[in-house]
Amino acid sequence: MKACVLKAAQNLVLEDRPEPSPGEGEVVVGLGAGGICGSDLHYFAEGGVGEFRLREPLTLGHEVAGQVLAVGPRVSAVKAGDRVAVNPNHACGACRPCREGRRHLCREVRFFGSAARFPHVPGAFAERFVAAEANCFRIPDSVSYAAAACAEPLAVCLHALGKAGAVVGRSVLVTGSGPIGVLLAAAARLGGAAGVWVTDLHDEPLRIARAMGATETVNVRTEPDRLGRQVAESGGFDVVFEATGHPNGLASALSAAAVSGTLVQVGMLPRGQTPTALFPVVARELTLVGSFRFDREYSVAVQAICDGRIDVRPMLTHTFSFSELAAAFETAADRRRAMKVSLAPG
Amino acid sequence: MKACVLKAAQNLVLEDRPEPSPGEGEVVVGLGAGGICGSDLHYFAEGGVGEFRLREPLTLGHEVAGQVLAVGPRVSAVKAGDRVAVNPNHACGACRPCREGRRHLCREVRFFGSAARFPHVPGAFAERFVAAEANCFRIPDSVSYAAAACAEPLAVCLHALGKAGAVVGRSVLVTGSGPIGVLLAAAARLGGAAGVWVTDLHDEPLRIARAMGATETVNVRTEPDRLGRQVAESGGFDVVFEATGHPNGLASALSAAAVSGTLVQVGMLPRGQTPTALFPVVARELTLVGSFRFDREYSVAVQAICDGRIDVRPMLTHTFSFSELAAAFETAADRRRAMKVSLAPG
Amino acid sequence: MKACVLKAAQNLVLEDRPEPSPGEGEVVVGLGAGGICGSDLHYFAEGGVGEFRLREPLTLGHEVAGQVLAVGPRVSAVKAGDRVAVNPNHACGACRPCREGRRHLCREVRFFGSAARFPHVPGAFAERFVAAEANCFRIPDSVSYAAAACAEPLAVCLHALGKAGAVVGRSVLVTGSGPIGVLLAAAARLGGAAGVWVTDLHDEPLRIARAMGATETVNVRTEPDRLGRQVAESGGFDVVFEATGHPNGLASALSAAAVSGTLVQVGMLPRGQTPTALFPVVARELTLVGSFRFDREYSVAVQAICDGRIDVRPMLTHTFSFSELAAAFETAADRRRAMKVSLAPG
Amino acid sequence: MKACVLKAAQNLVLEDRPEPSPGEGEVVVGLGAGGICGSDLHYFAEGGVGEFRLREPLTLGHEVAGQVLAVGPRVSAVKAGDRVAVNPNHACGACRPCREGRRHLCREVRFFGSAARFPHVPGAFAERFVAAEANCFRIPDSVSYAAAACAEPLAVCLHALGKAGAVVGRSVLVTGSGPIGVLLAAAARLGGAAGVWVTDLHDEPLRIARAMGATETVNVRTEPDRLGRQVAESGGFDVVFEATGHPNGLASALSAAAVSGTLVQVGMLPRGQTPTALFPVVARELTLVGSFRFDREYSVAVQAICDGRIDVRPMLTHTFSFSELAAAFETAADRRRAMKVSLAPG
Repeated sequence: MKACVLKAAQNLVLEDRPEPSPGEGEVVVGLGAGGICGSDLHYFAEGGVGEFRLREPLTLGHEVAGQVLAVGPRVSAVKAGDRVAVNPNHACGACRPCREGRRHLCREVRFFGSAARFPHVPGAFAERFVAAEANCFRIPDSVSYAAAACAEPLAVCLHALGKAGAVVGRSVLVTGSGPIGVLLAAAARLGGAAGVWVTDLHDEPLRIARAMGATETVNVRTEPDRLGRQVAESGGFDVVFEATGHPNGLASALSAAAVSGTLVQVGMLPRGQTPTALFPVVARELTLVGSFRFDREYSVAVQAICDGRIDVRPMLTHTFSFSELAAAFETAADRRRAMKVSLAPG
Repeated sequence: MKACVLKAAQNLVLEDRPEPSPGEGEVVVGLGAGGICGSDLHYFAEGGVGEFRLREPLTLGHEVAGQVLAVGPRVSAVKAGDRVAVNPNHACGACRPCREGRRHLCREVRFFGSAARFPHVPGAFAERFVAAEANCFRIPDSVSYAAAACAEPLAVCLHALGKAGAVVGRSVLVTGSGPIGVLLAAAARLGGAAGVWVTDLHDEPLRIARAMGATETVNVRTEPDRLGRQVAESGGFDVVFEATGHPNGLASALSAAAVSGTLVQVGMLPRGQTPTALFPVVARELTLVGSFRFDREYSVAVQAICDGRIDVRPMLTHTFSFSELAAAFETAADRRRAMKVSLAPG
Repeated sequence: MKACVLKAAQNLVLEDRPEPSPGEGEVVVGLGAGGICGSDLHYFAEGGVGEFRLREPLTLGHEVAGQVLAVGPRVSAVKAGDRVAVNPNHACGACRPCREGRRHLCREVRFFGSAARFPHVPGAFAERFVAAEANCFRIPDSVSYAAAACAEPLAVCLHALGKAGAVVGRSVLVTGSGPIGVLLAAAARLGGAAGVWVTDLHDEPLRIARAMGATETVNVRTEPDRLGRQVAESGGFDVVFEATGHPNGLASALSAAAVSGTLVQVGMLPRGQTPTALFPVVARELTLVGSFRFDREYSVAVQAICDGRIDVRPMLTHTFSFSELAAAFETAADRRRAMKVSLAPG
Repeated sequence: MKACVLKAAQNLVLEDRPEPSPGEGEVVVGLGAGGICGSDLHYFAEGGVGEFRLREPLTLGHEVAGQVLAVGPRVSAVKAGDRVAVNPNHACGACRPCREGRRHLCREVRFFGSAARFPHVPGAFAERFVAAEANCFRIPDSVSYAAAACAEPLAVCLHALGKAGAVVGRSVLVTGSGPIGVLLAAAARLGGAAGVWVTDLHDEPLRIARAMGATETVNVRTEPDRLGRQVAESGGFDVVFEATGHPNGLASALSAAAVSGTLVQVGMLPRGQTPTALFPVVARELTLVGSFRFDREYSVAVQAICDGRIDVRPMLTHTFSFSELAAAFETAADRRRAMKVSLAPG
């Protein structure tokens, strides 16, 4: 069976792996499509992401959907032939965060395609992979595998949305128009936001943001004063989602938040110290809250994609087969033209 | 009538001012005692605080209590002879924050002894001053004016406590053992915190913190590893109050907060950029929330001091008369020996 | 100038009233359209609503939109000729609820067409009426006056929605498919609810509920077991809005709420004692929260109607002129065929 | 080994039971003291509580503390000889409420001395019983077993307190001065409530309430107007804990809650319909929230008893040995003289 295995930074190959077999409560899924995520790109470019370093070959991939091929013992909710979106997050259920209902912060989490633990947990960019039955969510024939795979990043965004509380009628800013940024815009509109502004350095991602629900977009490179003017006129945004993970994005977010506003930090910030101006946090009584992965939001994301309330098609810019692996990652890394790149076996 | 007037940085004098007379709904208060606050020290040392600069002579002072001497028209709730603590915060009631119930963020606020507006709003380090009847809260004879004047900084701390939600049974850390730090410790205990740790660079303020309710104190200069060990063993603090306003204090606070913890920023951070490591905000899903002044907490503070649930006496280290103005400010600036310095006419 | 004046129960007449003139910060509005509300029907049928009794002739009407005809001194945000929706709620700004940001609970509120105070506050079913400038919200030509007048009941529903917290991805039940019920369904969908069920005793209101956003409707008279089956299968609804104000509706709502669910009581319950089974409140840890009128939600409602996110046209079933007053009220009282009945001068 | 076994209503006997032996992660505890709870009294008097009916002999008892006598495999945190308070609540960890962090609402919960499941889960009024290691919390020698056993009802009260949010500086009313009522008063004071009123029909329980932290008490039989006067003067209580479970208590609670107030229903209400006047829920926008058992609050309760912040000694009115079983239950049922009755082997 073929899998997309990262051997070292810049060294990603299609390699044979043993056929997986399902244990109790598990199923084998044949990959339909998998989305390349920013963390996949980091692993490929640098051999790691954040504090997690590649210590052995790692099959990448965690945004996936496919078809159930076989089921193990004590599986009842799904059956062979079902088309499913697959939650890549397997929490232990026993640690303190799990017991307190925060399974996304599980200390013993097994997350597809991650070097956080050793041995690493293999990902799902493979012809076939094993998943817990409880992590498989059925999708109708009308939804493509590539669209269903977007349930994972959408879940990230719905988790962030939940951190902001109800956004009905509120003004929202999203800094950064990558896949997370455009899904945050869509999620904010789903939640009833009155207006959603999105910023980026490039025009093409902003065009997609508008197609996904942004009501206004700002190219901060070519329109450097426009966001500031809007803040001055309106008093700032009620809710800001920071989706760049870059100090400049955070600075922009902090200066754009209204008095008593909420800033949800979604992009992973650098591990070291970076110059930051937190003065407004006190002077304007801001709330700055971090958002990490997701939990129950995965099923909400699948449902929203399946019933059409979230249409991810504008962001699905490219599809490649396993045989075009290098081109797929090269394309995904160029955010001026690619938004979400999908991979499929073949 | 004598008042403590700041003419310029380092130039604080006792000066004659016109007798005040009360307008409708106002009273004249004879100062009983006033506490010197950190912002008074900033005005004295630098001619300003944060972005507010001295542009004309300013009577300082906003932590005050005294006796009602005269009442204006349409005053019914207080009468001459009453001993009162005086809330220095006069909100407009009409701007958007006021209408939304956040009078502490009033855009047109008149705050005693502040250069935020021009002409400046005079403070209450004066033999007599005018206050709105609604800002005067009666105190019993058993409570000294110096203790009652602490209602103002205690209100700041109760407002910060409210930002943390209920703290019953939770572990709390306070960084910085100045007047705000020790009152935060007392407030956290009042709210039922299970344990309250306080840090500082000096021993004497930490001694006072223990007398005010801290269950453990750490001199981070002489015991540099102790806080880190506690965090490693316990998993960190549920709630952290950052009361230094210094980047080192914030760094300490961020690294000591538990997964899903809350960090309330009480100390005013520098206006410019400072190196900050915000990585844990996302990775541990922290909430970092700013706390600015207070509103309804003032009456709660008066009540807690008057019914003995908060005993501020351990922090009242020095008292000076107006004639010893220079010594009072010099003493207040030395945090190795002084905690709260009180001023009284004479 | 003609106005719709209630002289006593069942005695509603078109009567001459003096021309209104605007004071400072006020405008004169020419009525475009006004919606007949359930409380108008109660006043007409019984000479009162809840504890408020008619003590003098009262001009009815509080769901209104029209055109600005004249402006008083110190009016700057609107001008003659503007088409506006008018918030009927004028809070005092000074009482304790107002100071705490809950202006909808103002103790001295002046609400159009209400007998809560004496002398009564006249309503806006009149050719011309006076309103505070701050209560007038401009609407575009594309939105009819009848649609804009629905901002008032929609604001009631958005306030109730806010009581439920974020509803993104949650299951919602609305008991009662009157004007408030169908707008609650629309509001819940606006807020991202995954599914919205609406119940009623009649088919026609349920048809309109579906047109307004309900995903399922149940006629509890002809399908008595269907809601119970859904509750048994799904574990109940995350959020329930009780919009009948009838003990049967509340019983239905209580039995349909999921463990840890929230029940927002929107319908005004009877003043006396009614048999109620509150056992599930403890056993399933429900939250039962009352929702009364609205405040800032009015502007959100206007915006949602104007930008098309809420389409109220399916509920606008009838329009009558002042000359058909009796027919208008008779029609509005028959909920088997009428949903929202609009009145216009003429 | 002797155990207190209920064979049928009114038929409670001391009976031999097999010696327990600990499984993996379990310990054997020798009972030090056990408190008789209201639900024990219901089982005894009526053969059931709420909807749970006795279907086989049941060992009663769930408020217990004792000494660890033996440990099973894989036990590391406690050892033989340790004195411990024992949480009687064993959640499954796998059902939806458990996964969402609400283990107190576990669908498969095993709760000591409860007929909720069949076979019934035996209680801990026995010379020796088995408990999960994770449910055992060490107590110091300075705390009596009878006091430590109060951690269970105190946990119930801390859970209810949590439902009210932060109570610092707020006014609190508790209806009903039984063991839960007096512990609610103590918990409210622990959380910083400004004033705590407690009502009852008898004087002796109110005397104990004052000793436990109530600032005012009202005998609603002998002072029928006093509570109403206080409500009229003060505007009502910010937070009300209803601890009678009786419709009269709820009526009293509803009429005493301030505008925007919170009413936490702690007493289990009758299963059938009772006349209730819920009108104020909407008119005053009250929040009525149910509170059921507890989860993580158990460890907070143990800690508060052990560090002396909650002193339960005033409520420990009687102690009986197993040989006086009938007298113990008879005494516990007379709330005019008994508050908490403790049982000990012998």
